[in-house]
Amino acid sequence: MDDNSAIVIGGGLVGSLCACLLAERGYKVTLYEKREDIRKLTASKGRSINLALSHRGRKALRLIGLEDEVLKNAIPMSGRLLHSEKGDTESVKYDPVSNQCIYSVGRNFLNQALLDAAQKYTNLKMFFNHKVVDVDFNKSTIEVTNCMTNDSIITSADFIIGADGAFSVLRGFMQKMPRFNFSQDFIDHGYLELCVPAKRGDQLRPNHLHIWPRGQFMMIALPNQDNSWTVTLFMPFEKFAAIDDRRKLIEFFESTFPDALPLIGEQELESMYFKNAPSALVSIKCGQYDMGNRFLIIGDAAHAMVPFYGQGMNAGFEDCTLLNELLNQTQDNVSKIIKLFTQKRQKDAFAICDLAMYNYIEMRDLVTKPTYKLRKIVDGTLAKLWPEIWVPLYNSVSFSHMEYSKCVENKSWQDEVLLYGVLITIIIFAILILVLF
Amino acid sequence: MDDNSAIVIGGGLVGSLCACLLAERGYKVTLYEKREDIRKLTASKGRSINLALSHRGRKALRLIGLEDEVLKNAIPMSGRLLHSEKGDTESVKYDPVSNQCIYSVGRNFLNQALLDAAQKYTNLKMFFNHKVVDVDFNKSTIEVTNCMTNDSIITSADFIIGADGAFSVLRGFMQKMPRFNFSQDFIDHGYLELCVPAKRGDQLRPNHLHIWPRGQFMMIALPNQDNSWTVTLFMPFEKFAAIDDRRKLIEFFESTFPDALPLIGEQELESMYFKNAPSALVSIKCGQYDMGNRFLIIGDAAHAMVPFYGQGMNAGFEDCTLLNELLNQTQDNVSKIIKLFTQKRQKDAFAICDLAMYNYIEMRDLVTKPTYKLRKIVDGTLAKLWPEIWVPLYNSVSFSHMEYSKCVENKSWQDEVLLYGVLITIIIFAILILVLF
Repeated sequence: MDDNSAIVIGGGLVGSLCACLLAERGYKVTLYEKREDIRKLTASKGRSINLALSHRGRKALRLIGLEDEVLKNAIPMSGRLLHSEKGDTESVKYDPVSNQCIYSVGRNFLNQALLDAAQKYTNLKMFFNHKVVDVDFNKSTIEVTNCMTNDSIITSADFIIGADGAFSVLRGFMQKMPRFNFSQDFIDHGYLELCVPAKRGDQLRPNHLHIWPRGQFMMIALPNQDNSWTVTLFMPFEKFAAIDDRRKLIEFFESTFPDALPLIGEQELESMYFKNAPSALVSIKCGQYDMGNRFLIIGDAAHAMVPFYGQGMNAGFEDCTLLNELLNQTQDNVSKIIKLFTQKRQKDAFAICDLAMYNYIEMRDLVTKPTYKLRKIVDGTLAKLWPEIWVPLYNSVSFSHMEYSKCVENKSWQDEVLLYGVLITIIIFAILILVLF
Repeated sequence: MDDNSAIVIGGGLVGSLCACLLAERGYKVTLYEKREDIRKLTASKGRSINLALSHRGRKALRLIGLEDEVLKNAIPMSGRLLHSEKGDTESVKYDPVSNQCIYSVGRNFLNQALLDAAQKYTNLKMFFNHKVVDVDFNKSTIEVTNCMTNDSIITSADFIIGADGAFSVLRGFMQKMPRFNFSQDFIDHGYLELCVPAKRGDQLRPNHLHIWPRGQFMMIALPNQDNSWTVTLFMPFEKFAAIDDRRKLIEFFESTFPDALPLIGEQELESMYFKNAPSALVSIKCGQYDMGNRFLIIGDAAHAMVPFYGQGMNAGFEDCTLLNELLNQTQDNVSKIIKLFTQKRQKDAFAICDLAMYNYIEMRDLVTKPTYKLRKIVDGTLAKLWPEIWVPLYNSVSFSHMEYSKCVENKSWQDEVLLYGVLITIIIFAILILVLF
């Protein structure tokens, strides 16, 4: 075993966790990250800095003994706090039965913790400012360039993993190979990050993921350790473009998010809104995750998704758990497990990508509808009565390790049961009315 | 006008035609082709060497005065000749009403004719063995490398067109830009080219596209000028893989294509079948064809499709016709027309990609069904009665310039009319029976 070598491309969340797991297994691991070491930076740019950690992510962190440390630095969120246009709020628990939470965790903190963990393995070497510029699937080699010196090397390992994100370089090379099915779909909505500063953070009810659902768009806020909140506005790009001066912006917030405006602050809002362009949101599906006998893509490289189920990182971490299980089952037979990984993971990756797309509609619109609230109550009651049998969709996705595709199937039969329940009730009522009158 | 410059990437069918059209308009055109000049080669490798030219392609060729020359060197095909497993044949006309034909034309002949035409323009320069290695959409530049000397130049033009095929380099760069939607779908079937040599070419009925429809797979044959036939076997890759020795191959042909085997010849079949691996078939859809203010992709680069409607080249040529029309309408306002091109072309490109996928099922399976034959008769009769109103799908696609998406809509209402027709007939019969008995 101790002769096995692995290359991990990408030192983000999934890449660094994956590198740790392989080092834990005894692999001689080399990690290449094209950016510089984020531990040396003061703030990372342009990326969502808040993440919702749930069961699947926690399980993977547990494998490298990092779960407790991360949870200690995370903020539990037990439900959604819905803000109406009048400023009224309503708390909706994620898990009314056993009160399970998801955790707000900072991207930078988590990435740094993972890189620190990686650093401790003597059999793991990390190279920052190193980017992959070429891949040869036949020879199982990659060419890596040092961005500082421009020196290049051609290298190889028994297992080569691309965890290099939604715009993965490794996947780019895979896409050029025959019969590699692939799609990338950008939604018409973008996002822009705002902030409620620490000094006003107390004015938002703690331990909640705040949502301002507005039908065709929404704003959310997640808590940070320092008492500030990261606020994200999701809207159609054309709506962003239409709000193009200070007056329109303030008017928009006054009429749409009246309770949030004083928390963010008019000055700060203006400066944050006009400083950055809204970012795009992409959903990526691949027909396979393996290539040749040694290459595998995981995480966003394999299945980037829109962020509305808070499962992007969790799914990526779960890829690492699955990888570890498959390596266990096959005594580290890499050429076998990369194919098994595709077989096993694809339907689940497709399912969570689709669920994430659907959840945008739920978050921005459905949560305000009476039918949604009724369903939530019915789900809660049935889950309380039969906790083993009736697991609502959100719970199976966020608080279980059920395969994502099973979560969807599960929801389907629940929908059918409820539909028949309603129909039978109506028929019984109709019969009663006929009999009685 | 004579100051406008254009770069065309790709000197294949669509690229060379597009370059001619722009040169015709007075553009100073530079064409870069990564391969060497095919006019200097004896035979091209690995590409389908037969094409079915129909109305849309002919119209574009007419614009540069090349239609007559091409048709003189093409072989008209007035219908399909279906071969049963017993070796019986049945001719099915494409257009029973006015007997219009599609034309079998050699890829190499056509490409050479187009390059010869291009060569005649003094304002058009062609560079072979030149590949695009980098693109900067902000600066509107491309970097081109001479494959022989490895020298690179960075260059630009008022209009930069990628006609560089299904695996377009320009599109590859577009795919990396934000919000570029894209999918590539390889079907599970591959194709392998075989041949009926000229000496036995007379044994196949002339002026037909021959089909051996076998449900889950099929073989076709198109005539060549020299009396030989290009035969293409379309099958699931796993079926190709299962036929892995001479005995299996001959047995397969004896039982499945008994009449074709002696025409191809056992020896020749074996040598051709085992020399090449089956090739893949891809369908490509893009969310847009334009990028920046000057870049546009056309042809397979924009909408590669499976070959079953014989429309790949025709659609690519029609792109050139559309481009020419838009340039006329806008007095060569490039930044405007590239956006108009996306708006106007996308639904039609999606429609023909989907139709091509559907037509594989029609060609390999449906053509043998009684319902298909009945529909063909009904379509033919109605088209004869009301030629202006009732244009069957195949005719609108192959023998008209109706937008592809309109062809599909057209088929939809025809389907509805026929369905209601059948229902009304049944109801009238039922009423008659009730009245009479």
